[in-house]
Order: sequence, then structure tokens, then C-alpha cells
Amino acid sequence: MPREKTALKALTTALDAETRVHDDHHVSLRLWLRLLSCTNQIESRVRQSLQSSFNTTLPRFDLMAQLERAPRGLKMSELSQRMMVTGGNVTGITDGLEKEGLVVREVDSADRRVYRVKLTAEGERQFRRMAAEHESWVIDLFGTLSPRQKKQLMELLGELKEHLAP
Amino acid sequence: MPREKTALKALTTALDAETRVHDDHHVSLRLWLRLLSCTNQIESRVRQSLQSSFNTTLPRFDLMAQLERAPRGLKMSELSQRMMVTGGNVTGITDGLEKEGLVVREVDSADRRVYRVKLTAEGERQFRRMAAEHESWVIDLFGTLSPRQKKQLMELLGELKEHLAP
Repeated sequence: MPREKTALKALTTALDAETRVHDDHHVSLRLWLRLLSCTNQIESRVRQSLQSSFNTTLPRFDLMAQLERAPRGLKMSELSQRMMVTGGNVTGITDGLEKEGLVVREVDSADRRVYRVKLTAEGERQFRRMAAEHESWVIDLFGTLSPRQKKQLMELLGELKEHLAP
Repeated sequence: MPREKTALKALTTALDAETRVHDDHHVSLRLWLRLLSCTNQIESRVRQSLQSSFNTTLPRFDLMAQLERAPRGLKMSELSQRMMVTGGNVTGITDGLEKEGLVVREVDSADRRVYRVKLTAEGERQFRRMAAEHESWVIDLFGTLSPRQKKQLMELLGELKEHLAP
């Protein structure tokens, strides 16, 4: 990607000018920019596909995905914590979905001051339809990698993730 | 990450219910969620470090990085295109940096209707200081991977990226 290359040059040029280190030393920085660039690309493709196929947004899809996994529903605070993507206002998205009958807010049975958000039956149907398509896009996006390469990538990212875990 | 696991379960549970496929079939989806989760973690750590060490934001750092690489400056449209991270308003950030004397807007010599944004000497100094620290954080964040693993990850992401290129 031109963007990754430019960003890398910007960062490493600044450093080179000061430290005169060889490019090999910047491998972690290059890795980070490449990781970010891949994620940006995939995310942007998924956003576009959700828009064109379902006229919906990634944060909305993400929010429904979190609810799908929580049959008892989720408090707003839990929902916010679980979102995988940024760029959406959780309260605003929930309001929108509620208006369309895809989610409901219900008083928590244990604590009547708290609301829980749940998918409705219609919300669940709609999400399942989208999730099946979504997976087929993701399979295509990773289609260049062989099963062995996917396994390798999975393991390398797994090690990285464990190291990053708070 | 609990978040990745939850999201994966949400997505695959929905699919399993319909298609009864085995978990192995979801490898691309798992890979995507893991990639997203690693990127989110690293980005969030870098955001925190920029905040605590330099009282600045990632979009602001990103914007300065793009300018550092463009000694002739960039038009606002070019700047927007080159940003690697979301969550910042390019005009707003530029205004802020200009007020602090870190960037200037100059009339383009070829087309006097167009402004170009450039780092000032002070902006350049400040960026270089931040870039050096930034790289040391990134080196730490990837510190769990051996040089060989970094090379592997670089190659796998390189192949993925080429496939994703528009």
C-alpha cells in the first residue's frame, strides 16, 4: 500500500536522520504498519459490503453480533466494552435498532434500575442472514492464503495477542 | 481476548445454528477477529502512550508523520487520504497544530487557489522526538516474536495485503 509505505518512510526517515540506523532495525515498525494497513483494508471492504448488501454499518453489525451471543441480553456498559470496531455510538445504534424492532430494552430482573438490551426474533433472523454473507466475504478476503499459511498466521497472531493481553 | 472470543462465538453460533458446520470451517473468520483484536490492542496501547508521554493523540501523530515525509507539504485532500488511523478530523487537527506553531498553511506556488500544509522546523523537531519514543513502544509491543517470527508474519501479511490491494 502506498499509505503504509509513506507512513513508514515518514516514521523511519525521522529516525534515520537522528540515529543513522539501518532499515533492518525498523522491522517492528514496518510490521505494525503492515498489520494496521491489512486491518484497515479488510475493515473497509467489510464496511462497503455491509453497506451495499444490507444498507447497514459495521458498528451496527458488530453490536448485533454481541447481542446474538448473549441470550439474556447485555447492559449498555457491557455492550460498549465488547464492541470490536470504533466509529459508532452505542446508544444511538441501539435506539435505531429498537425503532426498527430488531432489539428491545428490558428491565433487568435482578436489578430493576438496570436495562438490558436483547435481540428480538426478527433481529436474530436479520443478523443470521448478514452473518452468513459476512463470513463469505471474509473467506474471500483471506482467500490468497493456503490452509497452512492461515494456521501459521493464526499462531503468530496468537502469540502476539497473548503478549499484548493486559 | 475475551472480546475476540465473544465476537467469534456470536458470529459462528449464528452460522452453526443454520449450517451445522464444524468450527474448522470458520478459520478465516477467526483469523479476521484475531487480526482485528491485535490491531485494536496495539493501537490502544500506542494511543495511551502518546497521551501519557506527549499529551497528544494518535491522529495528530499520524498527521505529523505524513507531513514529515512531504517536505513540499500536502494539500488537505492528500493529507486525508494518507491518514492511517481514524477518529480525527483532519481540518480540526491542522487548525490546532497551526495555532501551536507546529504546521503552517501555505499557498501552493503552482495553483494559488490551493493551500498546502507543512511542518514547521519546530513541528519537525517535536515529531522526531515523538517518533523515536513511538518506535521503542512498538518494538516492545512486538517483543515476544523472534526475528524469524517477525519475518514470517511480515511475509504472510505481505501476501494478504497484495491480495487486498484495490
